[in-house]
Amino acid sequence: MKLIVKEYDLDSSEPAVIIHDDDCIRLGVKVHDRVRINSGDVWVSLVGNSDTIVEKGQILIPNIYLKRYNLKDGDEVDVAHSPKPDSVIYIRKKMDNKTLTKEEIYAVVNDILEAKLSNIEVSAWLTSLYINGMDLDEISHFTNAMVDTGDRIVFERQPVFDFHSVGGVPGNKVTPIVVSIVAAAGLMLPKTSSRAISSACGTSDFVETFCDVELSAERVKEISEEIGAVFAWGGSMNLAPVDDIVIKVENPLGINPRAQMLASIMSKKVAIGATHLLVDIPMGAGTKIPTMDVARAYVRDFTDLGHKLGMHVECAITYADQPVGQAVGPILEARECIRVLEGDNHPGSVVEKACALAGMILEMGGIPNGADKAKELLESGAALKKFREVVAAQGGNYDIKSSDLVPGQYTQDVVATKAGFVHSIDNKSIVQIARAAGSPSDKGAGLLIFKKRGQRVEKGDVIMRIHADNEAKGIRAKELALRYAPIHIEGMLIEKG
Amino acid sequence: MKLIVKEYDLDSSEPAVIIHDDDCIRLGVKVHDRVRINSGDVWVSLVGNSDTIVEKGQILIPNIYLKRYNLKDGDEVDVAHSPKPDSVIYIRKKMDNKTLTKEEIYAVVNDILEAKLSNIEVSAWLTSLYINGMDLDEISHFTNAMVDTGDRIVFERQPVFDFHSVGGVPGNKVTPIVVSIVAAAGLMLPKTSSRAISSACGTSDFVETFCDVELSAERVKEISEEIGAVFAWGGSMNLAPVDDIVIKVENPLGINPRAQMLASIMSKKVAIGATHLLVDIPMGAGTKIPTMDVARAYVRDFTDLGHKLGMHVECAITYADQPVGQAVGPILEARECIRVLEGDNHPGSVVEKACALAGMILEMGGIPNGADKAKELLESGAALKKFREVVAAQGGNYDIKSSDLVPGQYTQDVVATKAGFVHSIDNKSIVQIARAAGSPSDKGAGLLIFKKRGQRVEKGDVIMRIHADNEAKGIRAKELALRYAPIHIEGMLIEKG
Repeated sequence: MKLIVKEYDLDSSEPAVIIHDDDCIRLGVKVHDRVRINSGDVWVSLVGNSDTIVEKGQILIPNIYLKRYNLKDGDEVDVAHSPKPDSVIYIRKKMDNKTLTKEEIYAVVNDILEAKLSNIEVSAWLTSLYINGMDLDEISHFTNAMVDTGDRIVFERQPVFDFHSVGGVPGNKVTPIVVSIVAAAGLMLPKTSSRAISSACGTSDFVETFCDVELSAERVKEISEEIGAVFAWGGSMNLAPVDDIVIKVENPLGINPRAQMLASIMSKKVAIGATHLLVDIPMGAGTKIPTMDVARAYVRDFTDLGHKLGMHVECAITYADQPVGQAVGPILEARECIRVLEGDNHPGSVVEKACALAGMILEMGGIPNGADKAKELLESGAALKKFREVVAAQGGNYDIKSSDLVPGQYTQDVVATKAGFVHSIDNKSIVQIARAAGSPSDKGAGLLIFKKRGQRVEKGDVIMRIHADNEAKGIRAKELALRYAPIHIEGMLIEKG
Repeated sequence: MKLIVKEYDLDSSEPAVIIHDDDCIRLGVKVHDRVRINSGDVWVSLVGNSDTIVEKGQILIPNIYLKRYNLKDGDEVDVAHSPKPDSVIYIRKKMDNKTLTKEEIYAVVNDILEAKLSNIEVSAWLTSLYINGMDLDEISHFTNAMVDTGDRIVFERQPVFDFHSVGGVPGNKVTPIVVSIVAAAGLMLPKTSSRAISSACGTSDFVETFCDVELSAERVKEISEEIGAVFAWGGSMNLAPVDDIVIKVENPLGINPRAQMLASIMSKKVAIGATHLLVDIPMGAGTKIPTMDVARAYVRDFTDLGHKLGMHVECAITYADQPVGQAVGPILEARECIRVLEGDNHPGSVVEKACALAGMILEMGGIPNGADKAKELLESGAALKKFREVVAAQGGNYDIKSSDLVPGQYTQDVVATKAGFVHSIDNKSIVQIARAAGSPSDKGAGLLIFKKRGQRVEKGDVIMRIHADNEAKGIRAKELALRYAPIHIEGMLIEKG
């Protein structure tokens, strides 16, 4: 049946076209059916008899599908009913806790990317993965399927080092420091990072306060091969793009199934051609990895999967039962990160973590006494120089100083209501407070933690300062801070008896 | 934030409102977030910056929510961001294979009905139920939650008998016969039925060819108490309405989790106040219940759940490895059903099944030798008289005759290509062929099977006749019949050696 294309710009996160009810009857399709448009397949999740939204003889197609199928407003297209793809059967097979073949996994990944599967089906897929899981062979196929449905970057310069932090700990601004140290040692580490989804601030969220992170694949290759490093936002390249679709379904459910998580991370690394990968596994109460047993299972997963994928993978289990350093939020974290590169030894937790991780990568690259060498490159200013080269290559100011970064002007102090020692800091509450202040979309928003675990606090001491770009958000964040009281203070009991 | 309501008539099967992108930023909401409208909650799955679809300051709300919240086009409403409901946590709990409390199950059911859960979340719920299941206490709470979120019918006349066929076998037109026999014996059986979803023809699909099935709850009560029976479409009353929402998500996945299936069926029975229930469990290859073990598990489930719900439940396991009778499709089934009531002893499978089931209900009602009594009521014409009373009460013609029912004029015969005995008939293919012919929406469409299992066939015999209201569909159905060859013919080998 011939219909006239009308562009439609509704962001529904569901691949959907809209057809007039009368035309649906003639086509024999109803809500949740799929229609085939010319040679391609598009899922119809919306069909309606709206006079205001669609007219008879029209088909409303979202912009992104117009691009994909090389269509434009006013084109005449041939529309027909399309049967369910076989991938629905493979999703059912995973529900029944069966092992999927390589071909079946590729079919599911391909159909998610090509919008042949609806949110309902992707949700069932993720729920099945969450409950029934995948074995390592399946995860390896899954990873490769995600790589093969996107672009790759092929570097002339080899080997390609990479670094990934599993995330979950607020204030983790070590990435640009680690990368700068590694590049200063002469190794190449083309780092792609993400933006925050539910966390307070992703690496790209704070790096973009001082340089551009949306780089093309060509530019990532050029900068990395010339300078040895890059701090790019992974989302600006087409690496394992199916991940972006899946994340939109994971978020409302609040799940990140192990198989999906491993395949998502490793597919980005394979796509960028990583030969050596260090995975930082932050472990601590209130994070994704609460115990040493869970952390060790992650280590096994990453190293075994790396082996299957032909990549040398090492893991570092790091402590994450409180935020890393003092600062949480884009400008605040950027400032703390650059201060460390400038030679500030405070906060020690940031310096220690960055040097330990960079040191492991140096040793993977054949440089002995990695941690000492990393410290040396940081203290000599070699890492800062490398950092500035990358910033300049990404359109930032080579002469950037930490003092250039000014956090939100509206501040709210939280004071201790009693004296004692900081017993623990609740990561989840810290994230909520920083987000209430406006982080990560308000670049100046966030918070500074002045007292960390084990430190002595006197009644009336400022233990936390909230920064905001907007006064109302600052006040709301402080209300949350008083309600959550995330910094727990207790008397230190040496002996009981 | 104040927005002006604009009615929107898009059938998206997802509870969704549309807000202009600028307003979304001001509200702090994005795709997949929920907004609260005045006192109620509506899920926003669609937000967009479409000039053509929504203007700044407007909120597009689907008709059904306008009714629910007593809103109309042009009203000013207060719109605010709404947090995730707790039911998302309980869905996660079921993903983790934990037992849910009564309160948790009620929260999920209530939030599905009130559109606080999106398709993504309902899909995760159903997938979790499919994989992890529920124990009988949970299913009992689930059933009651589904009852309590809808209307009930309270009969003065007691006891209330009911009958349910788990479905899955094509051509199963016994329901009006069973109900008529039971009512002729003086018992009351207010039968609500469904329309086909994926099957060839539901009971309501063929009953509505000779009388109205869309009855109000009041009318169901009146007719049942006066005549002793009714053949109503369950969907026209508000009994366990959450089921209708869930079915729309089950269909694309092709699943019907045991807990959901049991709660769906039993909630309709509780809502109608059934005190005695007979469940027909058709067992056979190619049906939902392929083996005796599966059938026995269903028997246990229904009787135990009935016990928990205070209902007397008995089950009949019936053979379903081929269609019941000859006819499949609305008018064809209606004609065969009425012929049996008129005294036609053919097809014997329909007569036998109807009398056996009716007999069990009679015995539950204290009438001894139920099957014999049922046969007697059928042969005496008492059941036909009762049937006609119900038809007339539902707006049909009291003097209805089977010959009044004329199937689709476009016929296609399928002939045997070899001689032999019918070895088996594939139910699933029969359903696909009938649907291709236009059943159940084209009332005259369907097929007649002339040769059943064990019957002798000569080469060239007509083994199946397809009826259609539309020639093209008839041809398509025949093509499918030749491709599937659902009636398997083999030489009968008496002895080998």
